[in-house]
Formats: sequence, structure tokens, C-alpha cells
Amino acid sequence: MIEQNAAPKYELSLTRVIDAPRSKIFKAWTTPELVKQWFAPLPWTTPHVEMDVRPGGANLFVMSDPDGNEFPNRGVYLEVVENEKLVFTDAFTSAWVPSAKAFMVGTITLEDLGGGRTKYTATVLHWSEEDRQAHEKMGFYEGWGQCTDQLAALVAKL
Amino acid sequence: MIEQNAAPKYELSLTRVIDAPRSKIFKAWTTPELVKQWFAPLPWTTPHVEMDVRPGGANLFVMSDPDGNEFPNRGVYLEVVENEKLVFTDAFTSAWVPSAKAFMVGTITLEDLGGGRTKYTATVLHWSEEDRQAHEKMGFYEGWGQCTDQLAALVAKL
Repeated sequence: MIEQNAAPKYELSLTRVIDAPRSKIFKAWTTPELVKQWFAPLPWTTPHVEMDVRPGGANLFVMSDPDGNEFPNRGVYLEVVENEKLVFTDAFTSAWVPSAKAFMVGTITLEDLGGGRTKYTATVLHWSEEDRQAHEKMGFYEGWGQCTDQLAALVAKL
Repeated sequence: MIEQNAAPKYELSLTRVIDAPRSKIFKAWTTPELVKQWFAPLPWTTPHVEMDVRPGGANLFVMSDPDGNEFPNRGVYLEVVENEKLVFTDAFTSAWVPSAKAFMVGTITLEDLGGGRTKYTATVLHWSEEDRQAHEKMGFYEGWGQCTDQLAALVAKL
């Protein structure tokens, strides 16, 4: 069967080995007080975080630039597998209300490498090549890369 | 908190009272052999149906025009509450791969009116006013209305 509405995967992806067990990384992704400590690339911050971590649960991440201007971002969790996988999208602001734009779906996967180390993969799919390119130009690799460094530094202390 | 990516609800909605209990209507929405009998407005038909009815499960509805041209439509279920609610979208072709376009989210709600009658509501939300209008011009009320008549006629025989 030919798919009418299938699309190529407009993907951006980042993989790191983090020197911490999966449970600590998952905790850092799902606990508001921890998320605030690493989610935005410094000198940006994340002063306000709300998360209902379950399929269909909504989230709100408010990022702040160095001048204190705040940028709220709402989304919904699509899939939650404790210590293994987290999928979220900005396509909905709550279950199941379309957002202003379906821009991306993010998937975090945590693979146990043994010895307390974890293969960390962040995959972001987009609805169009235009959006994928825009996200890359917005600094996906630099921004998500820096946040992943901040995440790794945080979980090392947990 | 002001929402950055909230949108007004670009909604189309249809409500009917159907002379059948909720369980029969839910069954007609979730059983491929039954879906084939009412899903497309005649003289269109639905010769092929695949459904994995659970949150994150994919579906495929192949509709056929009177000349036999086939139009496959893929989507994913977002929420399934037996005999009460079914939410699906064409924004994904499988969990969680973006489709060519996030066009709509459909919600079917079944309310028990007693005496074996059901209040049937189909609500469709879109990502833009442009898409809502396009869907209306495609014949939403006529098409979904005719399908609902076909559905009501089918469940009367179950």
C-alpha cells in the first residue's frame, strides 16, 4: 500500500555517552527543579517548569533570555517509558488541542552501556524540511549540545 | 502565563442522537469489518481498513471513489476510552513519525442518554483557520453527516 500522507523523516539527532546511569538522566528530564538547572543553554535560563509526565500530559517550559524576557513553550508528552524513553511534541498544548504550529517531535532514548554509563540520544523530527533547516539554523547542535553538557554535569552530582 | 504557541480552536463539530447504545457505536468505530460498511459516504467505499486501537496505535483507511481509485489515509490514535471516547490524528503515520501534514485531530465522544440512546459528537480540530475552512469546503458537514447516517443505520442492525 502506498502511503498518501507519509513523509521522509526530517530529522536532527544528537548522541552522547553520559557517565551516569539511565535513572539519573531520566530523573533530570522529568523533575521540574532539576530541569530548571540544565534545560536552557546558559546564559539563558529556565525559571518556570510545569510537567505532567504521562502520555497526554502537558508541559510548560518558560525560558528566559539574559535580559529577563520570558518565552513560554507548551507541549504534550506522547510516550513515557521510565528510564528508557520520553517522547514529546509542541504540536499540542494539551490533550488534544492543536498548537499554533506543529513544529517538532522530540524523542529522548537512554541505552544502558553498563558500568553506570548511558548512551543518550535526542532525536527531533519535523513536519517539513523547511522546519528542519530552520531548527538547525536556530542552533540545534550548539543549543542542544550545550544543554546536554549541562545535563551531564548535573547528573554527575546527583 | 501567556501561551506562546496556543491557538484558537479551529473547530468543526457534528452532534446526533443515535438510537443505539454506546457500545455498538464504539464497536462500529473500532472493528475493521464494520468500519468498511459505513466510513466513506456512498458511492465512495472503504475497501481496506487497518486499526491498532490503542494510544499510539496506527490506522490505515483506504477509501475508493466510484471509479476504483484508492486514497489511503494513515493516522494514529491518541486516546481510547472504551465506549466513551476515541481521539485520532493524521499528524502522525505511526508512533511518533510526523505525517506530510498535521491537518486535523478528530474526537468521537459517546454520551449515554438512557433508554439505549446515545448522544454522538464528532469534533474535528485543525492547526489553522485555513485548514478548517478547507475542510468545511471539502464537504465536512455533508460527508461526515452522511457517514453518521450510515453509521446509525448499521448499528441499528447490530
